[in-house]
Amino acid sequence: MSRTITPPDVVVRRLPLYARSLRYLLREGVNSVSSQELGERINVTAAQIRKDLSYFGEFGKQGIGYDVERLLEQIEQILGLDRAWAVALVGAGHLGEAIVRYEGFRAQGIHIAAIFDASPDKVGHSVGGIEIQHSTSIPTVVAQRGIEMAIIAVPADRAQEVADVLVKANVRAILSYAPTVLQVPDGVWVRYIDPISVIHSMTFYLARD
Amino acid sequence: MSRTITPPDVVVRRLPLYARSLRYLLREGVNSVSSQELGERINVTAAQIRKDLSYFGEFGKQGIGYDVERLLEQIEQILGLDRAWAVALVGAGHLGEAIVRYEGFRAQGIHIAAIFDASPDKVGHSVGGIEIQHSTSIPTVVAQRGIEMAIIAVPADRAQEVADVLVKANVRAILSYAPTVLQVPDGVWVRYIDPISVIHSMTFYLARD
Repeated sequence: MSRTITPPDVVVRRLPLYARSLRYLLREGVNSVSSQELGERINVTAAQIRKDLSYFGEFGKQGIGYDVERLLEQIEQILGLDRAWAVALVGAGHLGEAIVRYEGFRAQGIHIAAIFDASPDKVGHSVGGIEIQHSTSIPTVVAQRGIEMAIIAVPADRAQEVADVLVKANVRAILSYAPTVLQVPDGVWVRYIDPISVIHSMTFYLARD
Repeated sequence: MSRTITPPDVVVRRLPLYARSLRYLLREGVNSVSSQELGERINVTAAQIRKDLSYFGEFGKQGIGYDVERLLEQIEQILGLDRAWAVALVGAGHLGEAIVRYEGFRAQGIHIAAIFDASPDKVGHSVGGIEIQHSTSIPTVVAQRGIEMAIIAVPADRAQEVADVLVKANVRAILSYAPTVLQVPDGVWVRYIDPISVIHSMTFYLARD
């Protein structure tokens, strides 16, 4: 990568929204889009889009707008989406099953490559065509497959130990559905899917009115 | 509320994490906690916690720490969690069903009060003891029940029209699982559960290394 400035994380978090919007535009048969039009679709100003993209190089031409297909390709490359990502899923309960069966992941380059669970009742069974392996196999399987990313779908009180095992196995990005904040070393990314906290941050505003 | 300063949204989003951490502490039998200890649990500095809480009044005593039960009670009151919230769920597909069956919501004051779907095949059936009603009933049911919050679990291409109907029915907070950005008027809150975008914002960092 020619630029070495690390963009703010908030910018990185917006890039997938740009990519998705461009995918929708492409599907609608739109070939060219202005930063204004793109911005309106995702509630971001045109200036913000131009500023965000400027971290990564030159895109589009003044007064002409962006070539939808080309910008999408470039953003996907920036996001590392020009390849598929093998992901380990830990936790094969109801939530884990729903995650495996969710077609959206695979369609977007996220490939569940291995499933682990600590329950002997689950091990050996299959979900979505993938055999559930015992959690004790995480280090070997993750190493063998070169898996760098994991999804945690275990109860809150088991999530930290699972994260520790994953990090030790060189997983560098974790998406956690467990309602607890995980401790990981620098260089490992953790993000959360936490609908309860999200709702509670909205009841705040409703309660104030 | 005696203070009229609106805290930054980023502070509001942290409050539910404080509350959850305090709930865990309470369950562990911990009566008193320093901002340092509380911070370590959620990867926030002690100074940040003190600053965040200062938006809402005076909590704890210098050198003594916070009374866990009392601070939890106060934060829950600030977040409007001293009452239950009736929520309308729109979309009774796989995702909608999983949401209804998720016990975490109810345990945290989030009560699915009505379920809607546009498919005649679904209407009349029950999920988790709640009858699925046709989406055309949203305005009347939401008004009758005084519902102020909704969860959208419909496909992306239907989410905006559902949001429009909800907003017109005076819903003021929406949690959307649909992978698209919704347009709502000022005064209406929308937050997203969007695991694909979250993962894509991490592949960025992995791809760079």
